[in-house]
Formats: sequence, structure tokens, C-alpha cells
Amino acid sequence: MVVVMEEQASEAQIQHVMARLLALGFDVHRSTGVKHTVLGAVGVQPDFDHRQIELLSGVREVIRITEPYKLASRAWRPEGSVVEVGPGVRFGGEELVVAAGPCAVESAEQIETIAERVVQHGARLLRGGAFKPRTSPYSFQGLGETGLRLLREAADRHGLLVVSEVMDPSQIPMMLPYVDMLQVGARNMQNYNLLRALGTVRKPVLLKRGLAATIEELLLSAEYIMAGGNYHVVLCERGIRTFESYTRNTLDIAAIPVIKKLSHLPIIADPSHGTGRRDKVPPMARAAVAAGADGLLIEVHHDPDRALSDGAQSLTIEQFAKLMNELRIIAPAVGRRVG
Amino acid sequence: MVVVMEEQASEAQIQHVMARLLALGFDVHRSTGVKHTVLGAVGVQPDFDHRQIELLSGVREVIRITEPYKLASRAWRPEGSVVEVGPGVRFGGEELVVAAGPCAVESAEQIETIAERVVQHGARLLRGGAFKPRTSPYSFQGLGETGLRLLREAADRHGLLVVSEVMDPSQIPMMLPYVDMLQVGARNMQNYNLLRALGTVRKPVLLKRGLAATIEELLLSAEYIMAGGNYHVVLCERGIRTFESYTRNTLDIAAIPVIKKLSHLPIIADPSHGTGRRDKVPPMARAAVAAGADGLLIEVHHDPDRALSDGAQSLTIEQFAKLMNELRIIAPAVGRRVG
Amino acid sequence: MVVVMEEQASEAQIQHVMARLLALGFDVHRSTGVKHTVLGAVGVQPDFDHRQIELLSGVREVIRITEPYKLASRAWRPEGSVVEVGPGVRFGGEELVVAAGPCAVESAEQIETIAERVVQHGARLLRGGAFKPRTSPYSFQGLGETGLRLLREAADRHGLLVVSEVMDPSQIPMMLPYVDMLQVGARNMQNYNLLRALGTVRKPVLLKRGLAATIEELLLSAEYIMAGGNYHVVLCERGIRTFESYTRNTLDIAAIPVIKKLSHLPIIADPSHGTGRRDKVPPMARAAVAAGADGLLIEVHHDPDRALSDGAQSLTIEQFAKLMNELRIIAPAVGRRVG
Amino acid sequence: MVVVMEEQASEAQIQHVMARLLALGFDVHRSTGVKHTVLGAVGVQPDFDHRQIELLSGVREVIRITEPYKLASRAWRPEGSVVEVGPGVRFGGEELVVAAGPCAVESAEQIETIAERVVQHGARLLRGGAFKPRTSPYSFQGLGETGLRLLREAADRHGLLVVSEVMDPSQIPMMLPYVDMLQVGARNMQNYNLLRALGTVRKPVLLKRGLAATIEELLLSAEYIMAGGNYHVVLCERGIRTFESYTRNTLDIAAIPVIKKLSHLPIIADPSHGTGRRDKVPPMARAAVAAGADGLLIEVHHDPDRALSDGAQSLTIEQFAKLMNELRIIAPAVGRRVG
Repeated sequence: MVVVMEEQASEAQIQHVMARLLALGFDVHRSTGVKHTVLGAVGVQPDFDHRQIELLSGVREVIRITEPYKLASRAWRPEGSVVEVGPGVRFGGEELVVAAGPCAVESAEQIETIAERVVQHGARLLRGGAFKPRTSPYSFQGLGETGLRLLREAADRHGLLVVSEVMDPSQIPMMLPYVDMLQVGARNMQNYNLLRALGTVRKPVLLKRGLAATIEELLLSAEYIMAGGNYHVVLCERGIRTFESYTRNTLDIAAIPVIKKLSHLPIIADPSHGTGRRDKVPPMARAAVAAGADGLLIEVHHDPDRALSDGAQSLTIEQFAKLMNELRIIAPAVGRRVG
Repeated sequence: MVVVMEEQASEAQIQHVMARLLALGFDVHRSTGVKHTVLGAVGVQPDFDHRQIELLSGVREVIRITEPYKLASRAWRPEGSVVEVGPGVRFGGEELVVAAGPCAVESAEQIETIAERVVQHGARLLRGGAFKPRTSPYSFQGLGETGLRLLREAADRHGLLVVSEVMDPSQIPMMLPYVDMLQVGARNMQNYNLLRALGTVRKPVLLKRGLAATIEELLLSAEYIMAGGNYHVVLCERGIRTFESYTRNTLDIAAIPVIKKLSHLPIIADPSHGTGRRDKVPPMARAAVAAGADGLLIEVHHDPDRALSDGAQSLTIEQFAKLMNELRIIAPAVGRRVG
Repeated sequence: MVVVMEEQASEAQIQHVMARLLALGFDVHRSTGVKHTVLGAVGVQPDFDHRQIELLSGVREVIRITEPYKLASRAWRPEGSVVEVGPGVRFGGEELVVAAGPCAVESAEQIETIAERVVQHGARLLRGGAFKPRTSPYSFQGLGETGLRLLREAADRHGLLVVSEVMDPSQIPMMLPYVDMLQVGARNMQNYNLLRALGTVRKPVLLKRGLAATIEELLLSAEYIMAGGNYHVVLCERGIRTFESYTRNTLDIAAIPVIKKLSHLPIIADPSHGTGRRDKVPPMARAAVAAGADGLLIEVHHDPDRALSDGAQSLTIEQFAKLMNELRIIAPAVGRRVG
Repeated sequence: MVVVMEEQASEAQIQHVMARLLALGFDVHRSTGVKHTVLGAVGVQPDFDHRQIELLSGVREVIRITEPYKLASRAWRPEGSVVEVGPGVRFGGEELVVAAGPCAVESAEQIETIAERVVQHGARLLRGGAFKPRTSPYSFQGLGETGLRLLREAADRHGLLVVSEVMDPSQIPMMLPYVDMLQVGARNMQNYNLLRALGTVRKPVLLKRGLAATIEELLLSAEYIMAGGNYHVVLCERGIRTFESYTRNTLDIAAIPVIKKLSHLPIIADPSHGTGRRDKVPPMARAAVAAGADGLLIEVHHDPDRALSDGAQSLTIEQFAKLMNELRIIAPAVGRRVG
């Protein structure tokens, strides 16, 4: 932590700040410049609220130096992590991993049809919601455990793995037999009880960035899970909220290379939620891959006009097939391949 | 719902959209203009995803007309709601209701000292966290049930009511004996399992706006609670996330008059979280009251430099007393009084 | 400037950064911590781009310490500035200064009627646009010099001063005889040619914050004017752009106390543009005054339904009169009075 | 324009709104639903402020239907525009057009070295600022006309075309002999005097999106230029301001496919300003091309550590060469090629 004093700070104020820092357990290092005195404070704890010092009189600014996360930082594993979800399916490896499927599981026929088709075009995981976090209490809320069972069966028939969203700690034990990867939705990115509970599980977690979450906060949420001992975390950029309202959200493509630098965890993109409109999904999926994403989460439906939720942002099977072919052209530019 | 067709939409496209709307159960009403054909669709369900129509060929735009919330709308109770938390303490009445106290309950002495002092200056509720949602897994996480008991005892000794944050549905039964009002934090505004659980409770809920939540989403979250039968909801503006980083968040003061128009529910402000800095709390508290807020939620600590969390945004007792006196001057300008 | 090295930075990297800083003319001061080496660099120039150092290998972060503005900073004039626009009209003094009038000057009758009425209720300046920056090229663009003459004449008849917007350096000489204060609109806050030209004028400037401008950028734009020798600058908060679209902009009320701390310049608020809706103007005007604003800029029209521009955000005379009375109640809470 | 009345609107209120619409010159079309009465108003003028109707009593919402721009809309030229800057250099054609060069022209040697190298790797235009809009009045402000002459000479020696930024209408006549394309910077996107002046020129204009500008506002600014008769406009996405501060701005990649749908004008991206950091430029340049951009504007410097401005976001020659090779792999995925 670096404490910058005001130009006009008195010697008494400087001494008071130094005494306070020492009382808090820091080693203090003073450096007197022409204009400003700067104090280096060594030994800061992760939970230290630097505003405590900022409010002392004579202090101009306090700058935190150590990142507040450890296990999620690139320094902890400089070579990068590979998260294996099942045999041959690894996020963070050479192959770009694609999870595809409907927003919500609706019926055995629906999920079977979709599973059969997405695997043909290169998907490795089948996605589908059984519990849906809906903004309106009057919207379709998902099939629950029945949906999970249908998802599992369809995936097994086609050699796919399963990823589905968990909304509450109490759902975890019931879900474990059905899924290979537990997804935390954007609205739950800071549901700390849920994150802590996932830290005790030994299955990979797909953690989506919240709509208003900074990259640092996303990494801190990953740290919650990892601090519990579960290191199998894959991050997902899915759009942030900005003043531009033409697209539902603004997919922050730059977050991909930024996270690659700050963290060792794999990072994928969800262009379906990131744009909210089917015709914008392929360009943004291509962009994410070109920027270095380790994979994609894409909503696909064989009959989007009749989907019970989010049909508007689901690709048709044909669009998905076309997109996968475009990705096969782009991937080599970033040293990747598509399965 | 109003469907605006493209200028160059063909008659076949228009017919197709009309057929689709009819199949979905709408009454359709066509109006042909010089440039655009406009279709009125009557009978939309709350969970209808209007993007389904937006993607049909020839469609330029689809406009939702009915608000997606009902119980939370002003139309449902045009005269406005008064939420009574305890004898004589009513949000939405003539008196401005102030809830004050520390960020977190730390010890019996701490909460007793603060309770004793805030009641002298006009506070009606004692606030204090027992479960703390912390961005970092390494930060102080609260005293739990012990904290609630200390809060209750201190409040009872001084004729205050208690408001404290609930983070998970499983905590509700344990909390009920200790609190008069259950607070939902910003990060949980869209934790739908929690909202639904609170709908079955018969105690007032203080629902904070999420950092990236629109006003409409806040009202939809209130609707979740009300749809379960609990109509005792008080809303709280606590700052949104914007590009301006000097203050921790941007307290959206305009949300107060906007919500007053859209909804019958009381709305208060939290200038402590809304600014994150002690010296900015009094100006923003005054601003909120001048804009018509029904109350305030303010962090107060008798020794903020030693607070275990958020000391930097807590007022001292003296600052709180001075603020309450300023509010006594301002309140009559908006037809209110301070207790 | 403080340079924080990566944990794993090598001694060679540290030496390279130090050599580079010395070559750039800095005095360097090294401090070796348990984890990080931190370099203090003294003597930074205002135009130094700290990213130059940030990109050197082994560097984790570079922190600027000196504020990039001088003349606009509170340190330059700790007691605060009072900007006198005309006899007895001073922004930054005890009296809250209100500038009122229509969005655009439309006719002699219009401006006369409005001037006559706003002065009765306590306005000190008459505002009115003669050159209108309109988003659409097809909108009414103002009466030009004729509008300025009408504004001047109406103001003189009623003992008011005149403030009007300048859009281009070439308009300044023509405008000077007509106005007492030159307004720079939000869209021109970073039109540096205009700012430089205003630095050579000896009339007060009202500088509005841009829609996406940080507080620091606003102060840097003030610095442009002051660097030319014109110290008579009044700042104006008029709303920033956020994801919340119910109001046209989000009036950042907290900017008022923040600017009061960072700068000695007076700061006023424009709730008309800040909200874009007439019914939200009085609550936000009251909020701005309660937060410590030195004045207000308010659109008032005697017949807003027939206004040629921005009628929707103009108060009627009756609403303006009522607001001024409310402000007379609030002002004493912040040590101010309304004329 | 569609006017939606409140559920509880009285017949008298409805009649009043209809009368007002007729008085304003609209044809009115009434449609009475179960809950809401909806009025269609045909014949709206582009400069009509719909808030005028929104404020009438009984009105719930007013929805604009016609886009406020015409010449810039896709409907005006459905096949898309190709803007030819010089022989064989066409934005919007099959070839991806790359403009490269330093942030600012610094010397004859500098610009000669850079021109010689960027042309080898496929650039078609040489970029370089002669007038620099700098946030701080104390920063390097450019070489002025001398810089333009150096730019022109270096470009001519290497078969490149020239694009450079214009900041003020008064600079246009002087600049015309030196440049092939006039760039309008983000801060001037709504400098309407400048846009109008460029409408009278017959050279292509590169119009950058403002930091807080919506896509609609960008198209309206293009409309200003086109309304003057200059149809040779190329748009440029260069990042918007959001709460995420790790990158300088958030490059809104989705704006590329959105603008492709709404407008016929070519759209390129500027990943240098969009990220502000050299190491993030290649991933974002690749992403923009993968999303369908018609070209790129990239800062390149042969010795970025010694650049007088923005060296931190300039690619080295080697990085530029590597990027162009990656783009050669990606371009075919979107039906493009790199020169």
C-alpha cells in the first residue's frame, strides 16, 4: 500500500499517519519528495479497507498494490490452467471447447433433437437450464430435476458432457449426479453462500461475469470457490451493462485478453446473452475466438420460434453449423483448432 | 404490444406476422400508414418474449406496452403504500424514517453505545450486519446469530426496531425472532430463490437496488416478493455503477421521484454505500430528502477508525447529529418532518 | 509517479526501468519490499504518458500521484473562488445564484414575458440559446445574433444578466457585447480550440460537464481556459450517461461535493438537462441545493407546450415560483440564501 | 409515433391528446384495447420532440417509430456504400482497408520510416496527427501544417493515401491539399459546426464514435455531413466509456454488425484508442475483423518508447506485421481479403 500525502500536509499529520499504520501492523517506509511525502506500507492484509487511511487528515490518496486475489492470479500458476470436464474435453488446451444447447430444457424430444445435431457440428458439452432465473415472477421457471434427467440422458446418448445452472446451495447435492459442470449465472456471481458451497465440490464450475462486475470482482468470486479447495474454475464473459441499449448487453471482448494476462484460469464467451439477438451471435462468437477465448457457450434450438425462453437469441441448427465452419477458419490464427 | 413493420415490408411478410401473432393467442389490429404498417397485438402474457416477433422478417421494431409488473405499480394502489415496521414507525408516512447503525455488529459494547446515541438524535431503526457479503473471501464475514441477538437486545433497551441483512433463504427462520425488517442487499436483488422465500414471510422487507439494476428490474424484484403475498416492501436506492470512479458508486437521486411515480412503494436512500466516503454522506443524505425520499439508511459508528468493516463510510455520532439537524430544516420543504 | 514491479521481476528488469526513468529526467527512489519492489519517480511532467513505463517488462502498475491540473485545483486557492458576473451577482458567495429562461430564444414577446416573470421569483441571470447544438440536422437551430439581441434587451429591461451558449471560436467577438457570461455546452467540453479562445476573453465562462466526462476531465477543461489567463470559470453538472434510461441522463449530484473538495471553482447544477423531464426538475433542483451547489441553471417557459425546443423539460412560471419558495426553505440548511 | 394512454386515462384526456396531435399536423388513428387506448400519429417531423406529448395528462408512453436519420439509413441504399478514398482504395469493398501510422507526426525521419514499413505489410493509408486534441493544456499539441506536409510527402513516396484529424472548420481549406480523408475525432463527433462544414467538402470523412455516443447519435452525426451533400462518410468504432477501467475504453465490437444492419455506410474499428494498451491491440483488431469490420485504424510506431504521444498504444513494426498475417487467415471467414 502506498500512501500519498497532500502537498500541504504538516509534519504532525505525516507522523500521525505513520503511527496509525504501525499500530495496524504495517512496516512503514517514508520517502520525502519535492512536493509530496509518500509512505510505503508493507504487510497489508487482504481484508484491509484502505479507505481507513484515506480519510486521515493530510492524506491525498491511498494506492493498493497487492492484488486482493491469490489463487486466481496468473502469478500462482504462470503456465495457465487446463480444466478437464471429462475425457478429452479440456478448457484451456489447444482445442476450442464449445457448449451448445437450448436456453431451457423443455421436453425429451426437444433436448434429444438438439443434442443429436450439435454434436455433429463439433459441440463437446450440452447446455440447458433446468432452473431459470427469470426477471419476472410470471415467466417459465424451468422443469427442475426432470429437466436435468432429460439433459443427462440426451447427452449420454450422444457422447456429450452436461453443463447446467445452479441457483442455490441447496440444489447442489441433487444436481451432482446429472451434471459434469455447474454453471453460476451472472446474477449469482456475488452470491457468496453459493460460491462457498461450490468450493467444497470437486466438479468444474463455470462462473459467469455479472452485468456490472469488474474483472477484478470476477476474479475475487473465483477466489471464493478456489479458497474452498475447488480449483476447477472456468470464467465466462457474457456482457456488461452500458448506456448503449441497441444490444441487450455490451459483450466486453477485451476482457478475454485482459483476463488471460491477470489469471491462469480459462475464459470463454457467451455471445447469446452478450447480445440478446440471434443475428448478432455469429459475429460476436467469431470475435471472441479471434480475441483468444478458450471456448464458447452458445444457445441453439431446432425451432427457436417455439422455444419457451430466449428463442430470440438462439441460433438455428443451420446457423450453428455455419458458425462452426467459420470458426474452423479463424482458430488457426490464434493457434487453436475446433473439434 | 405494438409491432412496427419495415418500410419495405411485403404484404406476405405482414400476413405472416399477423398469422404468428394470432397463433400465439393475440388479438391483432392492423393500421396501415404512409410509410409503415403497424400491428397492435392485444392480450400479451407477462412472460412473453417480444424478441420472438422482432426477429420475423419484415419487422422493424416491437414495442412492449404493458408494464411487466402489476402489484408494484402505482396503478395498483394510486394513493401510495405506508409500510409499518412497528408501532409508530411507518415508511411512506409524513415522518422521514431513519435507520442508523454500524456496518457490522462487532460486540455488545459497540452496538449498545451506538444504539444509545442514534436514538437520541432521531433514528427509529437500528441497522447492523450479522452476515456480511464481502467481495473478498478473506474479509470479516460477520458474527452470525450472536450478532443478531446483540442487535435485538441493544434495540430493545432503547426503543428501536431492528433491520438486518438476510443472504440466503435458509437463514430466514432463524432471523425472524431477532429482526423487525429483513434487508435484501444489492448483490442479492435478483436472487430469486431468496425473493420467493421472503414472499411467504409476513415481515417488512427492505429491498436494495442492484448496482446495475434498472428501476424496472428493481420493481420486478419487488413483484417477486409481493407475488408471494408479502406486500410490505420498502425500496432503497444505494448507487449504481458508472464510469465515474471518484465516488464508489453514483447515487441515482433521480430514481427517487421516478419510483414515486411508477410505484406505490416507499423508497429510501442509502448514502453510505452510495458514496463510500464519510465526507460525502451528509450532502447526499440531504439531497435524497430534498428529492422526496421516505427515509434514510445510514452507517454510524462511535469509533469509525476502529470499525471492522466500512469504517470509511460511517459517520461519527457528532456528524450524524449535525446531519439530523440539517434534515429538520430541509424536510418541511417537501412536506415531511424528522422525528 | 510510483512504479510497482511484478513479484517475479528480475533485478535486470528493475535496473532497466530505473535507467529508463533516469533517461526521462526523473529522480528515482527504490524501495524493496517482501513481495514487490516499488520505484518512486520524482519530477514528472504534466504531459507525461505513464503508460510508457507501464509497458516495460516486469512492471505491474504505474500510479500517477500529481494531479494533472494546477490552476483549477483547490490547493491553488484553498479559500474558494467567487466569480462575479455583474454587480451583486456572484457565484460561490452566500447567495445561491439562479439562471433561468427558455431553452431557445424564439421571439421578442417570448423572451420579454419570461424575463419579466423569472426576475420576480428571484432569478439573477436570463438564459436562452441563440445557437442550438441539435443532435438532428433537421431540428430548429436557433435565431443567431437576432436571438442574442432580444435576450440582451429583455434582460436589461428587467435588471437581469445574460448567459448564452457559444459553439465556435469564431462566434466569440460577435457575442461579447450581448452576453455577461459565455456558456460552453456539454458536447463542446473537450473542444480545445474553443476552450483556448475563451482563455483570452475576460468574461466569465460557464463550463458544462460532458456526458461521459470524468470530474478530472472537467477540471482539465477548466484548466485550458485558465491557462490562457481567464480565471472566471463556473462549472456545471448536467448529468452523465449511464445504463439507466428512464431519465435522459443521470444527474451526478455527488459531483457537487466532490468538486467542492478538489477545486476552488464554483459549481452549479442544470436539472433541466440532467433529467429531461419537467416533473423531475424540481426534486433534482432541491437535491442539488441541499448537496451544496452554488447555483442552478433552469429552463423556464411561459408556454412550454408551444416551445420550439426542449419544452418537455421546461418549468412553467408557476412551477418555477413554487420551486424558488422550496429552495428558500432548504438553503439555510447549507448556509445559503436565495435572492 | 405511437401514443400509449394510461389504463385509467379518461375519455376527456384521450380527446385532449387527439386534439393536440391534430393541431400539430398529425393524422391520428385510434385503437381501443382492453386495458390501454393506443393512438397512432402519422406525419411526424424529424425535429419533433415526442416528450411534448409524453407530458400530457393520461399519457403513459410515446414511441417514436421513424428513425430520425434518412441518408445514413440502410433503407436509403440497401446494397451498402463503397467509399473510394483513392485509386483502388475502397472502404466497404471486398478488401479490408488498413490505415496505419503514428499517433502524431513528429519529424520527417519518423514518418518516412513508418510509411516505408507499414506499406510493406499491407497498409493502404498513412495516418498521423498534426493537430492533437489533448486532455491537458500542457501536452504536446502537434506540428500543425508542417506535420501535414511531412505526412503527404512520406505517403506519396510510398504510394499511400493520407488521413488526418481536423479539429475546427477554419482548418479545412488549409488541410485539403494535404489529405485524402478528413478524420473527425471522438470528442468532436457532435461539433455540429464542424460537421456542417465537412458537408460542403467533396473528400471522404472518417467519423469516429464519441465516448458516450449511442449508435443512433453516431448515425445522426453522419447525417449532418450527408445533409450537406457529402456522402463519402466512413464510420469508426473506437470504444465507449463504461465502468470497467482496466482498459481505457470498452471497444464495442457488437456495434460493427449493428451498424451494418442499420446503415449502408462502411464501418471500421480503432483498437488502439479502443484499448489504450499495445498488448491488447492485436486481439481486438482480430476481433473487429472477425465481426465484419470494413477496415482498421491502427497506431504503429518504429520506436514507441520514444513516441511523443500515445506510444503506449502503438504497435511496433514487428507486431504490426504479425497482426497483418493473422488477419490474412481470419479475413476469408467473413468473405474478405487483406491487401
